Amino acid sequence: MIIVVKNGTPADEVTRISQELHNTWGVTVEKSVGQNKVVLGLIGETATLDPMQIQNNSPWIEQVLRIQKPFKRVSREFRHGEASEVVVPTPNGPVHIGEEHPVVLVAGPCSVENEEMIVETAKRVKAAGAKFLRGGAYKPRSSPYAFQGHGESALDLLAAAREATGLGIITELMDAADLPALARVADVIQIGARNMQNFSLLKKVGAQDKPVLIKRGMSATIDEWLMAAEYILAAGNPNVILCERGIRTFDSKYVRNTLDLSVIPVLRQLTHLPIMIDPSHGTGKSEYVTPMAMAALAAGADSLMIEVHPNPAKALSDGPQSLTPEKFDRLVQELSVLGKVVDRWSIPDQRSLVALGQV
Amino acid sequence: MIIVVKNGTPADEVTRISQELHNTWGVTVEKSVGQNKVVLGLIGETATLDPMQIQNNSPWIEQVLRIQKPFKRVSREFRHGEASEVVVPTPNGPVHIGEEHPVVLVAGPCSVENEEMIVETAKRVKAAGAKFLRGGAYKPRSSPYAFQGHGESALDLLAAAREATGLGIITELMDAADLPALARVADVIQIGARNMQNFSLLKKVGAQDKPVLIKRGMSATIDEWLMAAEYILAAGNPNVILCERGIRTFDSKYVRNTLDLSVIPVLRQLTHLPIMIDPSHGTGKSEYVTPMAMAALAAGADSLMIEVHPNPAKALSDGPQSLTPEKFDRLVQELSVLGKVVDRWSIPDQRSLVALGQV
Amino acid sequence: MIIVVKNGTPADEVTRISQELHNTWGVTVEKSVGQNKVVLGLIGETATLDPMQIQNNSPWIEQVLRIQKPFKRVSREFRHGEASEVVVPTPNGPVHIGEEHPVVLVAGPCSVENEEMIVETAKRVKAAGAKFLRGGAYKPRSSPYAFQGHGESALDLLAAAREATGLGIITELMDAADLPALARVADVIQIGARNMQNFSLLKKVGAQDKPVLIKRGMSATIDEWLMAAEYILAAGNPNVILCERGIRTFDSKYVRNTLDLSVIPVLRQLTHLPIMIDPSHGTGKSEYVTPMAMAALAAGADSLMIEVHPNPAKALSDGPQSLTPEKFDRLVQELSVLGKVVDRWSIPDQRSLVALGQV
Amino acid sequence: MIIVVKNGTPADEVTRISQELHNTWGVTVEKSVGQNKVVLGLIGETATLDPMQIQNNSPWIEQVLRIQKPFKRVSREFRHGEASEVVVPTPNGPVHIGEEHPVVLVAGPCSVENEEMIVETAKRVKAAGAKFLRGGAYKPRSSPYAFQGHGESALDLLAAAREATGLGIITELMDAADLPALARVADVIQIGARNMQNFSLLKKVGAQDKPVLIKRGMSATIDEWLMAAEYILAAGNPNVILCERGIRTFDSKYVRNTLDLSVIPVLRQLTHLPIMIDPSHGTGKSEYVTPMAMAALAAGADSLMIEVHPNPAKALSDGPQSLTPEKFDRLVQELSVLGKVVDRWSIPDQRSLVALGQV
Repeated sequence: MIIVVKNGTPADEVTRISQELHNTWGVTVEKSVGQNKVVLGLIGETATLDPMQIQNNSPWIEQVLRIQKPFKRVSREFRHGEASEVVVPTPNGPVHIGEEHPVVLVAGPCSVENEEMIVETAKRVKAAGAKFLRGGAYKPRSSPYAFQGHGESALDLLAAAREATGLGIITELMDAADLPALARVADVIQIGARNMQNFSLLKKVGAQDKPVLIKRGMSATIDEWLMAAEYILAAGNPNVILCERGIRTFDSKYVRNTLDLSVIPVLRQLTHLPIMIDPSHGTGKSEYVTPMAMAALAAGADSLMIEVHPNPAKALSDGPQSLTPEKFDRLVQELSVLGKVVDRWSIPDQRSLVALGQV
Repeated sequence: MIIVVKNGTPADEVTRISQELHNTWGVTVEKSVGQNKVVLGLIGETATLDPMQIQNNSPWIEQVLRIQKPFKRVSREFRHGEASEVVVPTPNGPVHIGEEHPVVLVAGPCSVENEEMIVETAKRVKAAGAKFLRGGAYKPRSSPYAFQGHGESALDLLAAAREATGLGIITELMDAADLPALARVADVIQIGARNMQNFSLLKKVGAQDKPVLIKRGMSATIDEWLMAAEYILAAGNPNVILCERGIRTFDSKYVRNTLDLSVIPVLRQLTHLPIMIDPSHGTGKSEYVTPMAMAALAAGADSLMIEVHPNPAKALSDGPQSLTPEKFDRLVQELSVLGKVVDRWSIPDQRSLVALGQV
Repeated sequence: MIIVVKNGTPADEVTRISQELHNTWGVTVEKSVGQNKVVLGLIGETATLDPMQIQNNSPWIEQVLRIQKPFKRVSREFRHGEASEVVVPTPNGPVHIGEEHPVVLVAGPCSVENEEMIVETAKRVKAAGAKFLRGGAYKPRSSPYAFQGHGESALDLLAAAREATGLGIITELMDAADLPALARVADVIQIGARNMQNFSLLKKVGAQDKPVLIKRGMSATIDEWLMAAEYILAAGNPNVILCERGIRTFDSKYVRNTLDLSVIPVLRQLTHLPIMIDPSHGTGKSEYVTPMAMAALAAGADSLMIEVHPNPAKALSDGPQSLTPEKFDRLVQELSVLGKVVDRWSIPDQRSLVALGQV
Repeated sequence: MIIVVKNGTPADEVTRISQELHNTWGVTVEKSVGQNKVVLGLIGETATLDPMQIQNNSPWIEQVLRIQKPFKRVSREFRHGEASEVVVPTPNGPVHIGEEHPVVLVAGPCSVENEEMIVETAKRVKAAGAKFLRGGAYKPRSSPYAFQGHGESALDLLAAAREATGLGIITELMDAADLPALARVADVIQIGARNMQNFSLLKKVGAQDKPVLIKRGMSATIDEWLMAAEYILAAGNPNVILCERGIRTFDSKYVRNTLDLSVIPVLRQLTHLPIMIDPSHGTGKSEYVTPMAMAALAAGADSLMIEVHPNPAKALSDGPQSLTPEKFDRLVQELSVLGKVVDRWSIPDQRSLVALGQV
């Protein structure tokens, strides 16, 4: 951490600041006197310091610049440069998500509507190659008058789909009070974009065992997103997956959000955590899902989350961005061609080949 | 609500859509056939319809345009064009917040640090003219390693400051589990920017009686903000105050956020709810607070929230944006000159004059 | 300027970098060795260095942090902390624009439509207290099919309005080829938001004598805006006025742009140049102009630019954001009440009082 | 185009509006009366109408909604759904850029520094498979003190590189005065992001014959970008290529811009024009160029523009985002593997294979 002191700061104020920082935070302070500026370098354990707190020490401080990253446990350095993998036990066996593994497909409807639709969808996406079923029991909706999800009863339907197919379940937690019920069904707990900085909720999913998928907030910086993940790791849960789902920009006429694929190489440098991309929310239109899923895979995504609904025109939420099972089959076909040449594709099992042949 | 149908849609598909919308939603559908487009107008109770749901009815639908506003209870029309006021009972008597009343000052530190500081600050801001003390017991911090607030024990200190001064208390709720304890002390419950779309929390503060202050999310559109307020009203609590605290834009080098003062006239047209402006978070630097507070008052704000700390350089959070009590006195002096000519100032009581004289 | 060197950089590479920077740029390099990082401080004339160029010196450089501001001639320090004023000679006498002077009103239509309308408008806004007439001869329009301005013939009409009223003329230059003709009529040359980084044009208006008004680009940072002004000063013309006209954010449903009033205190610290605010473009709706003009004055603006059209409903461009002359009269009345208490109002002359009486 | 009339508008005002629109613009107006709103549909040639002009017709008009796209000549419909191709004659033969052709690689340094570097770079990128050399003679720089390009003398160096390799030349035009000199050398004229709405310049490149590459403005909406291209087509030049180079968002800590790859499928639906992606400017860091170039190709880009410099550490501009020729060779290798499976790769000629073998 570097402190830039204002022009004209008295020398003994510089000494006082240095002394105080040393006493309060245990850091060593090295002074560099320039022609116009004095710069203080803080040496020691600065990763967990808040620049604001440092700035408060003196009105003579002009800027506090963090050189170290603000995050620690999620940083790539924390694992000495190695990627981590999240291994999720599912009825069909453990699924490995991470840089060294084939891309993992997550698919399913925005919200769980009824048993038939969720079980049917689960069977179809499994046949196509998905390892996880996604589906919302609790739905964050901008209008209080819109469908809010079927809640706890939808969790039972997800359990039925899990039993019927052996797929892992990913579903969103909105309220800590629902955590026990949800954790009984979910293999991965999703924190939605709107709750990315709901720090109470982050602490609670950090204090339990199930892996957590954390979606990037609509206008969250990379640092804020990683710090949200840091909350979970700091609370004791190391199994976190980062999911980009589009950010808010000045133009939403043709896409609902702007899918920021450059996070893939950026996160790869900064963190060891696995990276998932959601091109369905990321664009908001089903016809843009395939090109953006292809792009995500080409850029190195570890996992893709795709909305699939047996009848998008009748979906209770997010129909316009959902693929039909048939379109999802075709997407997987296209992905497989690409995935093979970039060496991120697993050998398809027999069932899936047969299923694809039947379509 | 208007539906634009794609070029070349078969006539019987248009008929089918119209029929289905009528059957499902009870709306009447009027068809307007143009040279290139067919447009359907939905007539009836459309304010609570979700355009997405409508779009789902047919792949032939190109666009669904909402003509009615998505919100209802918060809309100005809901009160036939009249402003609402939020009346908050405080030990010093009821405080009226709204368009027809003098501007209400809310002041205090970012977080409650200890009894002495909070009681001293309360006395100082009361003397200067504030009606409410703000102060955080629970603090949303982007880092898990930063000071998170003193929690429940800080609520007791707020209660002490309330007793000592008679000021109303405004403090933030982050976790529904803390609501009972917090509601015992708070006169107004604050929902922070990061929780603006924490819909579970909104429903819970909507289901209790204390007035709610809802801060605009960092990248929340006006519509999303009003819909968040609508959640609270729809749950039964009509006492909501909207607080602008700066939005996220492409430039944060000199200000932490971009304070969007144009929300004042915009909200005035759209909603009956009172409008508060927070220039402290809105700029992030104490030296910008006075000009932006003046601007907010000139533009018609109903209330101002100002961070005041007895010793900003030692504040545990947000020191750089806090005024000292002396600077707050001067700010109020400047505001009073302006407030009088725009007819939004109350006659100062004797104590405050004396106090100002002492500074 | 501070250089942060990557962990593990060999000591002789640090020496090499230091030597090379010294040889190439004449700066002295001071090394500060931390526990994890080596930091180099560059001492000397660094304001005109490009961080990118520095970064290029070695792959071992992690970050280059500018401590000095990138601008020089526009900086407040360049005038030792004093504000500059732009004095514009007009037929009615010199007009002083700057922090130490009363607020200067600029008013008129978006585009010059015909002689009668521009002369009538000029008379009306003069009577109300404006010192300058604005009006476009050349109009930047997003569509090639929209009205592009009457061009050179409109310049003659502005000259006629100038002669009839003695007001100064402010009009936009889009093409350097039009500069000679435009400079014959204009008292202040406007560079529009879309051309803020048209550096060829900036150099040309910097190489002539007329004062220049430079509007902030739609997504220009404060630094970029000041650097655009720096182009003009560096080319020899010190008479530059900065005009904020709203920035592009994620929400443009109710306002065309987001008027960023916090630039007023920010620019005051950074630069000596006068500051103008344009609430007409800044909001895009006539009903929001008055509150935002009031706010701008309260925050300390040196000048206001207001669109006024005798018949907004028939305007060839930007009608929805134009005030009628009657509404402009009322705006000036409101501004005068505020302007007097903040000591930024000039004593109205007799003619304007009479004119106001007639309305 | 649809007009929504305010509640309570008198019937004869609706009639008057309809009549006036018919008389002025020759459109037929169809009225649809709803429970709360009256909606008017304009039928006829509305693509070139300005919603603002329509709004001006009456204060009773609440909203004007464009149903037709604002652009015409660039729209996909204008070519009955077919893609256009831009065929550029180069010394090595015509190069076809478009949806039906192999991806075209454009490579070279940010700015032309001297003959040796530009000729060497040209040879290297040609050997790797590029069809065009990019290189700036005139450079838009945010600082007047930064290197501004070698100007006209650099054009001669580009001509030398063209002669030495037969590559086509793409270089940026900043000032219409330089057009004759630049057009003698350039095979494609580039309009930079900062000049995307320099309408004077657009008209001039529209009035000459050379193909034009138009980069998306930093905060340009898709519509604004397409309208900028429409200026060129409307002026007579149909040979336009659209180039995405990253947009400005709230986070630029790790990437200089946010590369918006979703424009690929969006533009494909809206326009017939070819699409180029520039991952070098789009990210600003050389290590992110390869993953984003791969993503762009996977998403369907017709062309890629890549910065290559023989010695990025010594580049006079944009070194940090430039690849070395060796890295560019490797990038092309990776792209070829992907390009072949998505059927967008041309059979490499013998020279390039030999050249790659030599690296």
